[in-house]
This record gives sequence, structure tokens and C-alpha cells, in this order.
Amino acid sequence: MRTVGLGIIGLGTVGTGVVKILHSRRAGITERVGGEVRVERFCDKVVSSKPELGIRAGTVSRDYRELLADPKVDVIVELVGGYEPARSIILEALKAGKHVVTANKAVLAKHWDEIIGSAQKAGRLVYFEAAVGGGIPVIQGLNEGLAANRIRRIVGILNGTTNFILSKMSEEGLAFDEALKLAQASGFAESDPTFDVQGIDSAHKLAVLSSIAYGGWVKLSDVYTEGITHVNPLDLELARREFGYGLKLLGISAEHDGLIEARVHPAFLPLSHPFTTVKNEYNAIEIVGDASGDVIFYGKGAGQMPAASAVVSDVIFLARQVIEGTAGKLPTVTYDEHKKLRILDRKDFLSKYYLRFTTKDKPGVLSKISGILGEEGVSISSVYQPMVADRESQRPKSVKGRPRTDPHAAHILLTTHSAPEGHIQKAVQEIDRLPTACAKTVCIRIEEP
Amino acid sequence: MRTVGLGIIGLGTVGTGVVKILHSRRAGITERVGGEVRVERFCDKVVSSKPELGIRAGTVSRDYRELLADPKVDVIVELVGGYEPARSIILEALKAGKHVVTANKAVLAKHWDEIIGSAQKAGRLVYFEAAVGGGIPVIQGLNEGLAANRIRRIVGILNGTTNFILSKMSEEGLAFDEALKLAQASGFAESDPTFDVQGIDSAHKLAVLSSIAYGGWVKLSDVYTEGITHVNPLDLELARREFGYGLKLLGISAEHDGLIEARVHPAFLPLSHPFTTVKNEYNAIEIVGDASGDVIFYGKGAGQMPAASAVVSDVIFLARQVIEGTAGKLPTVTYDEHKKLRILDRKDFLSKYYLRFTTKDKPGVLSKISGILGEEGVSISSVYQPMVADRESQRPKSVKGRPRTDPHAAHILLTTHSAPEGHIQKAVQEIDRLPTACAKTVCIRIEEP
Repeated sequence: MRTVGLGIIGLGTVGTGVVKILHSRRAGITERVGGEVRVERFCDKVVSSKPELGIRAGTVSRDYRELLADPKVDVIVELVGGYEPARSIILEALKAGKHVVTANKAVLAKHWDEIIGSAQKAGRLVYFEAAVGGGIPVIQGLNEGLAANRIRRIVGILNGTTNFILSKMSEEGLAFDEALKLAQASGFAESDPTFDVQGIDSAHKLAVLSSIAYGGWVKLSDVYTEGITHVNPLDLELARREFGYGLKLLGISAEHDGLIEARVHPAFLPLSHPFTTVKNEYNAIEIVGDASGDVIFYGKGAGQMPAASAVVSDVIFLARQVIEGTAGKLPTVTYDEHKKLRILDRKDFLSKYYLRFTTKDKPGVLSKISGILGEEGVSISSVYQPMVADRESQRPKSVKGRPRTDPHAAHILLTTHSAPEGHIQKAVQEIDRLPTACAKTVCIRIEEP
Repeated sequence: MRTVGLGIIGLGTVGTGVVKILHSRRAGITERVGGEVRVERFCDKVVSSKPELGIRAGTVSRDYRELLADPKVDVIVELVGGYEPARSIILEALKAGKHVVTANKAVLAKHWDEIIGSAQKAGRLVYFEAAVGGGIPVIQGLNEGLAANRIRRIVGILNGTTNFILSKMSEEGLAFDEALKLAQASGFAESDPTFDVQGIDSAHKLAVLSSIAYGGWVKLSDVYTEGITHVNPLDLELARREFGYGLKLLGISAEHDGLIEARVHPAFLPLSHPFTTVKNEYNAIEIVGDASGDVIFYGKGAGQMPAASAVVSDVIFLARQVIEGTAGKLPTVTYDEHKKLRILDRKDFLSKYYLRFTTKDKPGVLSKISGILGEEGVSISSVYQPMVADRESQRPKSVKGRPRTDPHAAHILLTTHSAPEGHIQKAVQEIDRLPTACAKTVCIRIEEP
């Protein structure tokens, strides 16, 4: 029987999961591949052996170059994460004639051009199902299953950590810091959560999906990125109660006649939207094709076994092509290095907005605010003025007991119709300079299909 | 440049959509395939040419055998639907050395063994993404993207027609017949809706998904099938209001240590379940893998362009293998004709139940009913006795205005804990024989994860 040799680099959580599946599903994998998938060598900085997983001493190198030099290794599985040495490992592996499976969205987003270009030149494959959406087969769905389509739009909940935090803030009224601590204690956030809570991890994943969808490199710097650290549970509560909205950190990209829009930010969605039922560590990705219409992929976006499921599915698919002798004849994704995408400027993004103004409670404030919005061409969809501190007795019953940030200020809630961000920003800047302004206006986009 | 020749059989709605996409996406398809995909011939009983789609007179045969005999045709695209002549077309095409793309769930479900077996023997491929879930790439997701997993369970809203009807019954309080008429008027139901409303179309699709998932033929006759013709809008309203449930027609299959459970029937789901947001013609399929956990695929389950999207994606994937010369070296799906699956008997299905009893309003009825359930080992989760005609004044405010089917009868609503169906059936049969029984008990399963 023919064999395909793997070299696994990184024996952390996901790497261990991969070894487990390769072991427990050996017979099924052999049948699917038409040959045996055999792990020839491992590489890890710390682990030297794990006999319970069949990882024997002597098969684990400290230097990844030993795996690249091994002629029995056909496929390198890169599971170290981060930008370096992951980039070097992948590029050197391709140069050494190996195919690559990786779960690393960061290195792909940052070095797409170099990695995909090198794979094409070397006639080798790079597979990366686990890079986006954990165990959800969304890369394959986009790249193969929807291949007949021109992709119009992608909207995703792409990061489990922030989704967990927003779920807890919304359900339990926790502040951001409290919800983050809970996420860390529950194993849903790392000790340094920067990439997650600032939206960078979502931006990595959106860049990867968009680069596949639109046939050119959507760079990390092309993605407007805003995290969730400034989200106030007050707005979650008000928007849910008064407007029927739930908040999610979304990655959104779209193509408008060759112009690419790409952004990551918190956004309100109507509670009837399926995404508002996506809780905790789950991810959901909506892809809109011109023929298929909207398709949603949903599942666990992180975790040992979901990520390992995606890595091993890639290994199976790739190993099949290695055995057939066709691996690399055609590239993994359509990519033209000369195709330069034009990127839509942030000021031209069209969005509806939720705006919370904090003002002195004086007559004429609402009229002044709506006047400034009107001058910028921003039209108002609905107004709600819930919290006037010095008219306590007049407050409607339903808002009793609501927390107030400043007993001397009033809050005015507005939702707008769709308008260019440049206009919204200009209006809000002007409103924040009014003598009646007590705090910076809270601006949160609304995604309403 | 190398070419792959198609023969398209059936120029109805989906066939026309396929031709449209092949035309409009020609450049992108050529790039993905590494060669040109060219439709060499068509076959249709009625259409002779469609110049606006590039279908010239002289390229359309009446007899499909002319396409099978054409050496320029590499792939037959079967879009006629139904059992025959679809079965003959597919089997003869394989025998003639052609690969096959089909959207036909009926023929696959009924003749899986013969079709998949013939493809294996002939070393040819049969692809059928459009057979389940319209434009949703769920077949590929199950077969390739989740290939690393042992599949535990599949739960799907697999039929758009019944989902449309149940949506309308639930939202607008329509009776089944009224909602069916509306579906027909809106183009969501055919003039003969038997296969849809009796659950047979869902059973076809569940049989196909299950045969892939469990590696053996799950026959149509192995699927317990119950439709929606008997659903009463009263139960939709009561279950929503009193228990927070929504009703969907589900296809469910699971593997329990080599024993396969497969069933199609209406089921209540908690309103917090993502499936309850699936409206109208949309489908959703949940697949639970041992490593991936639960993954959901969602999108348009029918319609010209969604189905054509799936067919063309299959064509692209297959054409790539034809050009590489590898098509058919490995079978499409894992299938062992000698693997005989054991099928769980209906009486052993474990389900929670919603039961609505219609009884004379006499003291001791509830005690009698709960006693009979208890004797069968069925324990009660909750009881609600909403409609006692002769205690009008005592009815709680919230149920005023609720329709009543019989002014002299009382309704008792119960939900049960999980119990084997055999026990539930036996208890209900006994309860329906009580002298106080006014009508057959309504039994609807509850799917609560």
C-alpha cells in the first residue's frame, strides 16, 4: 500500500488533537485516502515524547529543518501559530517540495501573497481549513462548494473569545473587564487577549476569506478594524429593550464592481437574525453568492478537537492527491498576483447607526442634534430619550431600575438610516463640540439586511 | 487548452440555470478547472433550442442515448428528476464510461446501492451536491470537510415546501390546506405536493445524507416517515405560547454503536434553537461529528439558481479531475456494499413528547391519564390544562380569545420526559380508549438537545 508521510510541527493543543484523530480513525482515513497516512516525524520545542499517543522518543526534533530534509515527509503540518517562525517554516517547506497544512490565519493574512505565490511557483499545495471557523468546513465551502458563484458578500462571527464576552455582557449585564476575566477563567480567552478583543484575529480571518472570495490579496491593512474593549453593557441593554437588537463582533466584506469593502467592528443585529442565536465559542459565517444566495456555516470556532477535525480533513484531501500524483497540478485557490484590488475608504462605508448622546437636559438639544445630522444628510430612523435624570417621576415604568452613568445628564438614543460613515463621523464630531455635550457620543453600526 | 465535454439531460428550471452559469462564469470556471468546460449536447423532451442561452438547434436530442454515444461527452448532467428514466440514464452513462452529476435525491435514495456500486465498478464518479439542500454545499461538507469525523447525528430541515407551509401556519394561524394553497400560489409547492407534505422528499434526502455519513446504504424504507398534513394550527399556537416551542419538519438520523436510527416527522424545538429562525424555503442541516462537534449548514434549499450553483460546483470539481486524469481513481463516497446496517425499530426511538388530550371535563381525568403514562414508564415534564369550556370565567386572562375545537370538551396539554416510542404509543392507545376520551390524542415529538 502506498503511504503519505506527515511531519507535524507543534505538539500543543491542536497538534495533540490531530495525532489523536489520526490514531483513532486510522482505518477510515486509509479507506478515504486510498493509502496509509503515516506521521514520520514531529517537531516541538518542549515535548520529547508522548507514549500514550504513540509519539516515541527519537521521532521528535527540536529543529523543524530536520523534517523538511526528510524525504519520507510529503506534507508538513504547521501548528505553531503566529507570524514567525511559521512564515519561514511554510516557505522553506514549499521550497523543499513539501505540501503544507496549516491552521495559522495570522501568517496567511499577513503573508498571503508570499505564501500562495510560493506554493504556485513550487507546484505545491497549502491547505488551511482550520484557519477560519475551527471545525466548520467554511474554507472548502467557499473555495469549492460555492465555486460556481461570484461572491457578493461575507459576514461572519469569526472569533469565539469576543463572542463569549459579548454573550456574557448581554446575558448577565457584566462590564467588559468582568466578562473578559470570566472568559479567561473558563478557558475561552488567553492571558494576553489583545488579538481577540481588538478585533485583529477576526481581521486575520476576514482577510483570508476575502482573499479567496475576490481572487486577490485583501491585506490585513485593508481591513478597517475596531474591537470590543469600549463596549458598554448599557448600550447592549438599551438597544435590546428599545430597538430589539443584539450586539456581535462582525467581520464584513463585500465586492462592489471591483471595489472591496472590508471591516471588523461590533454591530447591532435584529434579534430575529440567526446570528443573534450564536452564543459563546460558536462562529457563524454567511457567504452570499450571486447564484447560491445566502449560505450560512455555523459551528465551534475553536477548541482542540474542532480544529483538529479541520486539519485532518485537509490532510485526507491532500494525501489523496499525493497518492494520485496530482497534488499541486492546480493551485489550492485562484490567485493572480498581478490583480490589484481597490479598497473602499472607510468614509464611504454605508451603515445604519445607533447613536447614544449624553447631553445636558436642556430644551432644544434634540432639535440641535437632529439639525446637525440633517445638514450632513443623515436621516433619523427612530428616537428614544429614555433617561432624564431630573425628571425621575416622568420616566416610563419599563426603564425603572436602569443604571445611569451620570445623574445630571440625559441620554438621547437615535437610530439612523443608511449613510456614509464620513458624514456620520463629521456630524458626531460637531455634536460632541456642542456646549451641551457631557460625554463622547457612542456610535455603533447596525447591520440590518 | 484541454476541454471537458458535458451532456446536459433536462432543460427545465435547473438545467436552464446551469447553462446560464456556465455561460456567465466561463472565464472563472476555466481558471478553476485548468481547461475549458464545453457543453457538447443537450437532451430534452420539449425544448429544441434556446438561442438566448446559446442552445442551438441541432445540439438538442430527444434521445439521451445519443449523448451517451458521443465520445466528446465526458460528463452527463442528469436533471430530469424522479425514479425513471433517471435511473436508466445514470446507470447507462456509467456503463458508457461517463461521469455523472445529478440533482436527483429520489433516484439516489431508492437506488443508492445500484448507482454507487456501478460507479465504483466502472471507475467513474457520481456527484450530487444539488440533491440535498439546494445551493448549500452540505454533501461536500459532510463527505470531505468533516471526513476526519465519525458522524454521530444529523438533524435537518430538508424540505422548503413544508417549511414554507409550517412558517405560514405558525405566523398567520392558517390551517394546513390554506397554507398549502398559499405555497402553491407563491411557487413554493407543486400542483401535486404529495412527496413534500408527506415527508417523502425529506426522507429521500435523509437517506442520502445518512448513507454517506454511516458508510452503508440507509434505504428509504429504513426511514420512519411522517408528514405534516395532520398538523393543527391550534397546537402550533399552544406550544409556542405555553412551552416556547416552534414546529419544524425534521429529518433525523443517528448512529448508536452500529445501530442506525432514521426518521422524518414534525417536531417541536425550543424557540432558542437556531432552527426555529429558519423560515420559508430555507433549509438547515446540523451534522454532529465526534471531533468537530455540531456544525450547521444553512441556505436556500431549492430554486433555480441555488440548485444550479450546486450542479456547476460539482461540474467544476469533476472537470478538474477529468483534466488531471484522476477522475474515478477513488470513489466519490466511502461505500461497502457488504456492510449491512442494523436499523433501530420505531418502538425504540427515544423522544420527548407533546401530548394534547381531548377529554370530557370530569374530575379525575388528569389523574387517570397520568396513571396510564406512569404505568408505561413515561414521566411527565409539565402539564397545562388551558381550555375548559364550562369554566369560562376561571380561564386565565392570557388564554382568552383562543380558538376552541369543541365547546363541550377540555384539552389537557402534557410534555413528557424522554421515553421509548413503543411505551408512549401504548399509553396513548389506552388513554384514547377511556370513556372520557373525546378525540384522538395529538402526539408531537419534541427535539430538545
